Amino acid sequence: MLGVPFDGGTSYRPGARFGPQAVRVASKLLRPYHPGLDTEPFTVQQVADAGDVACTPFNIESAVEAIERTTRSLQERVDRIVAVGGDHTIALPLLRAHAGRHGPVALVHFDAHLDTWDTYFDAPITHGTPFRRAREEGLLLDDHSIHVGIRGSLYARDDLPEDEGMGFRTIASADLDSLGIAGVADAVVARVGSAPLYVSIDIDVLDPAHAPGTGTPEAGGLTSRELLGILGRMGGTNLVGADVVEVSPPYDHAEITSIAAAHVVYELLALFAKSHSARESASTRRAVEAARLSSTQEAL
Amino acid sequence: MLGVPFDGGTSYRPGARFGPQAVRVASKLLRPYHPGLDTEPFTVQQVADAGDVACTPFNIESAVEAIERTTRSLQERVDRIVAVGGDHTIALPLLRAHAGRHGPVALVHFDAHLDTWDTYFDAPITHGTPFRRAREEGLLLDDHSIHVGIRGSLYARDDLPEDEGMGFRTIASADLDSLGIAGVADAVVARVGSAPLYVSIDIDVLDPAHAPGTGTPEAGGLTSRELLGILGRMGGTNLVGADVVEVSPPYDHAEITSIAAAHVVYELLALFAKSHSARESASTRRAVEAARLSSTQEAL
Amino acid sequence: MLGVPFDGGTSYRPGARFGPQAVRVASKLLRPYHPGLDTEPFTVQQVADAGDVACTPFNIESAVEAIERTTRSLQERVDRIVAVGGDHTIALPLLRAHAGRHGPVALVHFDAHLDTWDTYFDAPITHGTPFRRAREEGLLLDDHSIHVGIRGSLYARDDLPEDEGMGFRTIASADLDSLGIAGVADAVVARVGSAPLYVSIDIDVLDPAHAPGTGTPEAGGLTSRELLGILGRMGGTNLVGADVVEVSPPYDHAEITSIAAAHVVYELLALFAKSHSARESASTRRAVEAARLSSTQEAL
Amino acid sequence: MLGVPFDGGTSYRPGARFGPQAVRVASKLLRPYHPGLDTEPFTVQQVADAGDVACTPFNIESAVEAIERTTRSLQERVDRIVAVGGDHTIALPLLRAHAGRHGPVALVHFDAHLDTWDTYFDAPITHGTPFRRAREEGLLLDDHSIHVGIRGSLYARDDLPEDEGMGFRTIASADLDSLGIAGVADAVVARVGSAPLYVSIDIDVLDPAHAPGTGTPEAGGLTSRELLGILGRMGGTNLVGADVVEVSPPYDHAEITSIAAAHVVYELLALFAKSHSARESASTRRAVEAARLSSTQEAL
Amino acid sequence: MLGVPFDGGTSYRPGARFGPQAVRVASKLLRPYHPGLDTEPFTVQQVADAGDVACTPFNIESAVEAIERTTRSLQERVDRIVAVGGDHTIALPLLRAHAGRHGPVALVHFDAHLDTWDTYFDAPITHGTPFRRAREEGLLLDDHSIHVGIRGSLYARDDLPEDEGMGFRTIASADLDSLGIAGVADAVVARVGSAPLYVSIDIDVLDPAHAPGTGTPEAGGLTSRELLGILGRMGGTNLVGADVVEVSPPYDHAEITSIAAAHVVYELLALFAKSHSARESASTRRAVEAARLSSTQEAL
Amino acid sequence: MLGVPFDGGTSYRPGARFGPQAVRVASKLLRPYHPGLDTEPFTVQQVADAGDVACTPFNIESAVEAIERTTRSLQERVDRIVAVGGDHTIALPLLRAHAGRHGPVALVHFDAHLDTWDTYFDAPITHGTPFRRAREEGLLLDDHSIHVGIRGSLYARDDLPEDEGMGFRTIASADLDSLGIAGVADAVVARVGSAPLYVSIDIDVLDPAHAPGTGTPEAGGLTSRELLGILGRMGGTNLVGADVVEVSPPYDHAEITSIAAAHVVYELLALFAKSHSARESASTRRAVEAARLSSTQEAL
Repeated sequence: MLGVPFDGGTSYRPGARFGPQAVRVASKLLRPYHPGLDTEPFTVQQVADAGDVACTPFNIESAVEAIERTTRSLQERVDRIVAVGGDHTIALPLLRAHAGRHGPVALVHFDAHLDTWDTYFDAPITHGTPFRRAREEGLLLDDHSIHVGIRGSLYARDDLPEDEGMGFRTIASADLDSLGIAGVADAVVARVGSAPLYVSIDIDVLDPAHAPGTGTPEAGGLTSRELLGILGRMGGTNLVGADVVEVSPPYDHAEITSIAAAHVVYELLALFAKSHSARESASTRRAVEAARLSSTQEAL
Repeated sequence: MLGVPFDGGTSYRPGARFGPQAVRVASKLLRPYHPGLDTEPFTVQQVADAGDVACTPFNIESAVEAIERTTRSLQERVDRIVAVGGDHTIALPLLRAHAGRHGPVALVHFDAHLDTWDTYFDAPITHGTPFRRAREEGLLLDDHSIHVGIRGSLYARDDLPEDEGMGFRTIASADLDSLGIAGVADAVVARVGSAPLYVSIDIDVLDPAHAPGTGTPEAGGLTSRELLGILGRMGGTNLVGADVVEVSPPYDHAEITSIAAAHVVYELLALFAKSHSARESASTRRAVEAARLSSTQEAL
Repeated sequence: MLGVPFDGGTSYRPGARFGPQAVRVASKLLRPYHPGLDTEPFTVQQVADAGDVACTPFNIESAVEAIERTTRSLQERVDRIVAVGGDHTIALPLLRAHAGRHGPVALVHFDAHLDTWDTYFDAPITHGTPFRRAREEGLLLDDHSIHVGIRGSLYARDDLPEDEGMGFRTIASADLDSLGIAGVADAVVARVGSAPLYVSIDIDVLDPAHAPGTGTPEAGGLTSRELLGILGRMGGTNLVGADVVEVSPPYDHAEITSIAAAHVVYELLALFAKSHSARESASTRRAVEAARLSSTQEAL
Repeated sequence: MLGVPFDGGTSYRPGARFGPQAVRVASKLLRPYHPGLDTEPFTVQQVADAGDVACTPFNIESAVEAIERTTRSLQERVDRIVAVGGDHTIALPLLRAHAGRHGPVALVHFDAHLDTWDTYFDAPITHGTPFRRAREEGLLLDDHSIHVGIRGSLYARDDLPEDEGMGFRTIASADLDSLGIAGVADAVVARVGSAPLYVSIDIDVLDPAHAPGTGTPEAGGLTSRELLGILGRMGGTNLVGADVVEVSPPYDHAEITSIAAAHVVYELLALFAKSHSARESASTRRAVEAARLSSTQEAL
Repeated sequence: MLGVPFDGGTSYRPGARFGPQAVRVASKLLRPYHPGLDTEPFTVQQVADAGDVACTPFNIESAVEAIERTTRSLQERVDRIVAVGGDHTIALPLLRAHAGRHGPVALVHFDAHLDTWDTYFDAPITHGTPFRRAREEGLLLDDHSIHVGIRGSLYARDDLPEDEGMGFRTIASADLDSLGIAGVADAVVARVGSAPLYVSIDIDVLDPAHAPGTGTPEAGGLTSRELLGILGRMGGTNLVGADVVEVSPPYDHAEITSIAAAHVVYELLALFAKSHSARESASTRRAVEAARLSSTQEAL
Repeated sequence: MLGVPFDGGTSYRPGARFGPQAVRVASKLLRPYHPGLDTEPFTVQQVADAGDVACTPFNIESAVEAIERTTRSLQERVDRIVAVGGDHTIALPLLRAHAGRHGPVALVHFDAHLDTWDTYFDAPITHGTPFRRAREEGLLLDDHSIHVGIRGSLYARDDLPEDEGMGFRTIASADLDSLGIAGVADAVVARVGSAPLYVSIDIDVLDPAHAPGTGTPEAGGLTSRELLGILGRMGGTNLVGADVVEVSPPYDHAEITSIAAAHVVYELLALFAKSHSARESASTRRAVEAARLSSTQEAL
């Protein structure tokens, strides 16, 4: 786990710079065994806290460089990283580092917002633009990326078609009502296939009731049970990296947002553990996946 | 949009007088395009903030008169109004003004409570009585009105039959579990038909998790996704006016209640926009409606 | 109703000592008639507030003795008790008193956690151990007890099998997604049968969004509508006692946790009222139950 | 002690209707012996909680009548009353009842605001007008009344002279810096003399740092040490009644405002106790007073 | 009044971007007449809200340019400006604009911190550096500037001497205990003399009890009464511009910080009004000043 | 620094178990140089965080033993310790360890409460009794100990004389008004003399405005400037150990209580540094002390 306490790319409510600190505190409630995925994430694999990236709060470009540099340097020593933000700007340097190691990746992006906008106040790199920049730089696999949880109003009628033109598919928040947790998870797994997978989770994918402590809350979101349920069904994927961003403690209450984020981080560590142990039994996984694929084709 | 900062009719937790101010601030996160209804509410129609009604906090009757007077005067200049409360008392003068213009209206009333009680502390007009008074004054269409989201304990065994005797039908909060969002929306649209429709939304129709900032919270409510989902399926109705009430900022946290309310207001503006543009294609709408009606008849 | 303001068995966030006070205040919003169970809990039966147990905050054993003593003494005067905690430690003396009167009881335990751990810091009686101790003391019926709402990580792979070896069954929080409210309720009622029933509700069975004011919040929980919905379908059971615990007001916001708890207490009082009036019509109940049992056998 | 949960006369932030409840809870920290005044307020005299006045939240006139009626009825049984509000409107019916019993009284009024305005939104009786009305009705002694803690901006240049014309004197909040606690207390005691004294304490006399939970906070106020220090030096007065108003719990944090108010109530009870036991030693008191008077004449 | 919603130069707790909005809301409690300075700030002069500077949250240099440009453009139309931040970074462009108009100015700087540090994370312009930069650019009068309220730990033993070398004098927060409000005010007025004066008020000059809603709180600060008391004694100065910065609403409670800031803004407007009307009676002022100077020379 | 996260001895509001964590976070704002005492506490001496004592939350006696054991073991490696609580119970084992090393110590005890009560609910060791127990065990020097900041009501008329009989002297909170910061500091230093000094600071010595986050708040307390001012004048004492207790983060707001506590810890570290470097110049110190003594004799 790597903390990235940067929120200089935030357009509305700041405070995500204190996200890593809060998620660490909230992690005290995590226990060793994950019954859903039947794994012990801290035993199967070595889990370490790599501390926080030292990055300036005053300059987006410098911070982005520092984050990429620190991530690459950390990758020399560890297999896989869950970064805890910080605002969504940090996904860009993280994707640069991950694509540098694994080639272009499939992206599963949980968020209320597309984050594929172009510029805002002329700034090319902010928390609203990481995936457009990432795609322009060839860091993403066009046919394997997907947004989950999108909702609310958009800047323009073209936003969705443009986003689709960049190779993304979208499962809206409201789609949970028809597809259900399992249906969404199947669709996501089918979209990703066996590609190296990067999961980016903006905590505002949760409804403000579940995640008040965030910068750009949007009514009508997922429950924490839905988010954890989808992640818990992604055991067959080849997860190579992840981030959990936009936890803004000054707007949180009773730590409920950072607790949700800590549970999400734990779920990701369990997925790492699962795919770790799964490497020896890859053929099994492929069979399971095939079965899933056929069952989810109609779901979408 | 018209602010009505009056909460003198509140029986329990006050504070809704600051609702208009909070909803305005929370509206900063709204963007121009509504993908669900495929419309641009601020482009299709002119949307303006008419400011707040100047009304005394000290006298219910005077305030109610001022609200009706201001609404009627505003109606001379604008087509349709979304009022933001304020407590639910304000629905009475708003209904008086709307019935004055459109004749008796169908009422779709989202609330945890019936608000058709008679008197409380001898006061005939409070936030628990607007719809009994409105019905007594002939402002409502008996066979087209419906409560959505009712739950919790009642004053007496007769409350529900009495309410039904006034021409209301009720979809309880728990009915969401069996009917689903679409089922509830279909039932509502069927009930309303093509009558001029007034929608009154007490934010406490949401669960306290989604709307802590309100005066009479009741556990077991709707999620914001459910409320927005129902509204988003009411595109075929003839919406002529609406209010969103009982947002009490002193009890809110991280603006989540006022954000939910702002999104609800936006949904109502999109419904206005939709019916606005729909006037040219009324025949299409009628066909859709017919299809919906048949499919929802069994749902109820 | 009996207040038990003891939180000396809390391992993480304390404050449940103020639970009874907060639940009493939140009870002001309760009204006389329960439409779901069609009963008037305060009329059918006499409901009284027995005040708070006077128990030391400094010594678990003394407090546990005082709680048992007070409960037994109260049982001499009243038929049935709903205790409001305090932390979950209090369930042990309450079960001792109830088993002393009714013999071993069926336990329906709503909680995010199993609470059947052994010791923590060498302490045999804490808020994580009441049901292991109760079962060791023969207070529970092995084939009729069940946990509802369990989720999150566990201390060890053996926790669940060990718990099952103690005679418990488990409905996980995520099972709500597949079984639905009615399915869960049916399974619970079937498990309990006609045994004397004790219901123990840790408010952390709710998601932190619905119950931030608690000691050990766990993401992915029930909504308040789900919890109330399950309780509301348990009308056919032979409820002899209950507790609602772990409401920690210092972590609450806008009273939403204590309001949810007050509604849960009201639901339990309505169940008491229901089974009270039901004694005369026991045969009817048995027939209903038989029908339910067959329909729920496949659900589990 | 009498609770008066009425806040219908509030012009800005409401919530004082929950003041009595909050002050009662905060009173749990009070202990039997007052070292400063060397008295045991609960032993020297019988102290009872007379509960809350049942008054409508919807109509100022009715509420004011109910408060006066309840106070007069209570006065038949008890010697002296500390009322806990509620907003400052309640001072008028309380003064009516007290003047009814004792004749016109000296008023010591702790407040950030004069509360001698005339009307607001045409309402003659609100929380900004009680002392103008009281003086018009002849309830106050012209040469013995005084405001303490006044600060902030005023409606008009005439406010202060007009107020002085009504017989009031004013010690501004900033005067504490030059007079000191003892100097202010001496001036107050000198002004009051041996007249029957009514003390009315708007908790907003404290700085918002010390009393955030109030309706019309004004920067630059007293510290709680200053307020308690002044009260603690008023032992020689003939206190016949008092109120503590404008505690608005929804705006409070960690109960600091209601704790300050509870300590103020305790101080008033100790003053009652003191003057109670002092009746036997009245001559002593007169001597002390004489000494004080001479020393404070230069202070003003 | 000009809002400057920029907090991109914040090193610790952000959120001051919402300062202007919060101070505007808190200004609702301000009334027309200032009794201390015996002036009506909204009558003597025309007071207008110039809205917010449109500045990017993503780039300090661009934002600083936009702020200077907007201020200069505004100066063409209005006489004097009170800017409301925003973080302290904004003082630099404001001083550039003011020095551009009035030549180098005397600076009275209320703050817990010196804000004359050099760079932080290599950034030359942040909220910790505005006055070093301003002095380097020749915007300040060396012998007339002073810090008030400084306290807490420093980066290095040289900080204070270095600061003094830049022409500043310092009145520490603890000096209030010995000098008193009047003593500090006299010293400040003496230091400034008749030079054109710019007052920059970091709200963290107040103790965290009085201003919790700020970015870098430091225990041991001024009370709001002390700050208002000092400002209220600066009526004889030639105030040409001012800012009030570092109000961070996400950390505020019950608006107490923004209320304090609104009162400070009001005090500054009253000082403007005072010096406005004083221009006609300049000689009087000079006489007063002379008297004050002699009395304060020993105070420092 | 040693964290002692134990609050099992708390009689009212718990939560001090999270004190060490909160004070550590708040310490991020501390900088290397202390201008008041002209020392660099982290340079003159090595300052380390010894982590938290591992102590059960369930048993006071076991916890007290663990705290003493850990402290003694730590004392073998380090010179002096500042413990951060936790509730005031922890002062007893800390005093045992310190008296074990230095012999009986002078105690300077900052608190709103005497903490020399006997038992509560029969428990001999709680947060209200440490100094009675310590004195009974001979850990304190009778003629050199003093309470500072005492205020509020007491259990009995005998509390103060009894306390005095145990060798304590008392400076009440209200004495600050007459003695001033310097006067109190002088009296404290005079009382302590050159005895080995242990300073125990209950954060509730501060007014609730300055320290809302504590368990037993009492109106009328010290400001943070007063507390820091007194400590900053204790440079000539022979400080051998200290604790800062009763910071209860669940009741804090915007970290103001933990920030005050962090500043107090810093002040204590500076006092350590000062006496550290002072050992070489002991004679100087003695001279200063002599001068001070004479000047303060009249102050008491």
